[in-house]
Amino acid sequence: MKQSHLFTKTQKENPAGEMSINAQYLIRAGFVDKLSSGIYTLLPLGLRVVKKIQDIVREEMDALGAQELLMPSLHPKEVWETTGRWDVEEMYKIADEPYGLGWTHEEIITPLMKRFLLSNKDLPKAAYQIQTKFRNEPRAKSGLLRGREFIMKDLYSFHENQDDLDDYYERVKEAYFNVYRRLGLGEITFLTLASGGTFSKYSHEFQTITDAGEDIIYICHKCKLATNKEVADGKCPLCGSTDLEEKKAIEVGNIFKLGTKYTAPFNLVTQNNNPLIMGCYGIGITRLLGTVVEALSDTKGIVWPKSIAPFAIHLVQIDGGNAEVVEKCNEIYEILQKEGFEVLYDNRSEKTAGEKLNDSDLIGIPLRLVVSQKTLSVDGVEIKERTSKEASLVKINELVNYLKKNV
Amino acid sequence: MKQSHLFTKTQKENPAGEMSINAQYLIRAGFVDKLSSGIYTLLPLGLRVVKKIQDIVREEMDALGAQELLMPSLHPKEVWETTGRWDVEEMYKIADEPYGLGWTHEEIITPLMKRFLLSNKDLPKAAYQIQTKFRNEPRAKSGLLRGREFIMKDLYSFHENQDDLDDYYERVKEAYFNVYRRLGLGEITFLTLASGGTFSKYSHEFQTITDAGEDIIYICHKCKLATNKEVADGKCPLCGSTDLEEKKAIEVGNIFKLGTKYTAPFNLVTQNNNPLIMGCYGIGITRLLGTVVEALSDTKGIVWPKSIAPFAIHLVQIDGGNAEVVEKCNEIYEILQKEGFEVLYDNRSEKTAGEKLNDSDLIGIPLRLVVSQKTLSVDGVEIKERTSKEASLVKINELVNYLKKNV
Repeated sequence: MKQSHLFTKTQKENPAGEMSINAQYLIRAGFVDKLSSGIYTLLPLGLRVVKKIQDIVREEMDALGAQELLMPSLHPKEVWETTGRWDVEEMYKIADEPYGLGWTHEEIITPLMKRFLLSNKDLPKAAYQIQTKFRNEPRAKSGLLRGREFIMKDLYSFHENQDDLDDYYERVKEAYFNVYRRLGLGEITFLTLASGGTFSKYSHEFQTITDAGEDIIYICHKCKLATNKEVADGKCPLCGSTDLEEKKAIEVGNIFKLGTKYTAPFNLVTQNNNPLIMGCYGIGITRLLGTVVEALSDTKGIVWPKSIAPFAIHLVQIDGGNAEVVEKCNEIYEILQKEGFEVLYDNRSEKTAGEKLNDSDLIGIPLRLVVSQKTLSVDGVEIKERTSKEASLVKINELVNYLKKNV
Repeated sequence: MKQSHLFTKTQKENPAGEMSINAQYLIRAGFVDKLSSGIYTLLPLGLRVVKKIQDIVREEMDALGAQELLMPSLHPKEVWETTGRWDVEEMYKIADEPYGLGWTHEEIITPLMKRFLLSNKDLPKAAYQIQTKFRNEPRAKSGLLRGREFIMKDLYSFHENQDDLDDYYERVKEAYFNVYRRLGLGEITFLTLASGGTFSKYSHEFQTITDAGEDIIYICHKCKLATNKEVADGKCPLCGSTDLEEKKAIEVGNIFKLGTKYTAPFNLVTQNNNPLIMGCYGIGITRLLGTVVEALSDTKGIVWPKSIAPFAIHLVQIDGGNAEVVEKCNEIYEILQKEGFEVLYDNRSEKTAGEKLNDSDLIGIPLRLVVSQKTLSVDGVEIKERTSKEASLVKINELVNYLKKNV
């Protein structure tokens, strides 16, 4: 895409009233726009990243045999009264109408499954959605990390017995680790014990280390398990080690063994009339967008991992006053497009070289290609990775082969 | 996908309280589930169709040079007060909070564009989203045709002057016709004059003929233009003909020249301080799902056009008690998967041949392949198009070639 065509622009100044790094960078670089506290528009660049995060999550859910559906946001009062959760503070309610806005979907999917899970032969089954959630959030001050409106993946599984849930739960854990690894967060994301609720002592969170995190976790590097402060007692519950590292972290996933908490009130039962055993598993998609920015950025701007970068290549035209540079650079852009590379092409004529290079660092595309009078004088393109200080020169006639190996 | 794995099931009985054909068929076949009046869950089969409709619309919008973004549903009261629309009856409001739920997005995108449209060189620009809308709808009785929560594509364009809007508007018209043609609705969808509003005498709707439609239109077959009853006066406004056909129809798109109606109050202006000229263009995605079912179904069930069918092929195993049939049918399924065909495989052992063939008609996949003892006795597969009465036999070793030509 040509940058002159993109309707968004970068901005130099930090947006007023945004304290979080993720929102500052995402707004300045033109990935999101703030409509109100905790409520953001995904601009074209931001939507491209979010779609790639969604695709990674979707692939991992599909690999678990889970089936995608899309449930509504308008929830009738009566289903929430069935479980006694109509009056929780998380829920926005519609004025003068018997609806609340969904912040989770146990109350929708459990009665829905009664239509279809009719015999033990129908079990186990799992279904997920990638959907917009709403949450009455008093502390919406962390940019994309904690929103009043946000995109989540929520998966629900239904089982005949506890053993079957336990097996599936372990498989979901692995799928979650796959997601974080593919997002470039693998090394800094830890399975973390958190408070459990009615049916188990602990639940499991996935926590990514970042100074912007609102949680405190204690990491045991020996057994790669962390404990949330809310349930910590000075030693690792798994190996007993007291050699723990205290870190700030952001919760990027949470999985629960719900047992019969929702299947019992909705009477979703097996042939023997026992309530089904249920699990639920959440990942915040837009929270991951913010987390990647918090965890991987540097002082110049965002650093996208290749897997979710809005484009693979940022082609930057310098010396746009020179007709030969423009012509040659347009030619290179056409070739890269034809070869199927995802390219953002900074063809803007009104910007200086310095402005363009600063913008490129701010936007954070993994590979930068600069075409200028200087590079053309040796028939070359200057190539630099966003995370590297060194640039190198590649001959134009070797460029496509080089990129095929390195993108 | 194996039908035994799919968590949804077909049902024989019409759902209680559903008067519309689209909701009856979509519920019975397992494409949607009704949560409440005008509020539906998209089940895996339904979501597959909706994604294909979205992809077609997205391709046509991208071809117009429009850029995709995603705006929020929670809208601050103040932006709606700016245009005097906070108290319209369409809007759901959040209890005790200063938010309404978005049923359209002029009030969001216009101030958003002020951040970016800074000079005349930035014009024209167009942006669209595919997003969930909410609408306080007293008449939510038509299944997917009129919802309280529904998916829409809304496109907004911004221009320096009226001529530029007029040109773009004509291009959008063509894009809309492309969408309806690709959905199999081309022959029965008419550009229709409707009431205009502040800035023009008429707006344009696209109306698809179906008995379930809530509008009355008068079609001039001579110039291929229709007139909505609300503005009709007995003759075609274009050619003057009085030879008009009265039909029930459903509005599947609506395009407006908004002029400065929203850019003026938000002070979105050109360098010369004139408000930008704006257009908006809507297509109801889930309404199209319902419209296709209303317009193209027969008495046996749904008839999906190839372009948006949930699967291209329905492979039906008959005589599942016979081990050779099961083995051979599994083999054919594997081959078709490997060749990249989208196949729903009815491998259910508990259903009779009659039940399976009825289900296949109800679900409405374009091509049905039956494998039975009888077809295997001649090394063949019985092939029938959903819209045809005739079946034919194709040899198994010629099947892939046949399908490559016919799917």
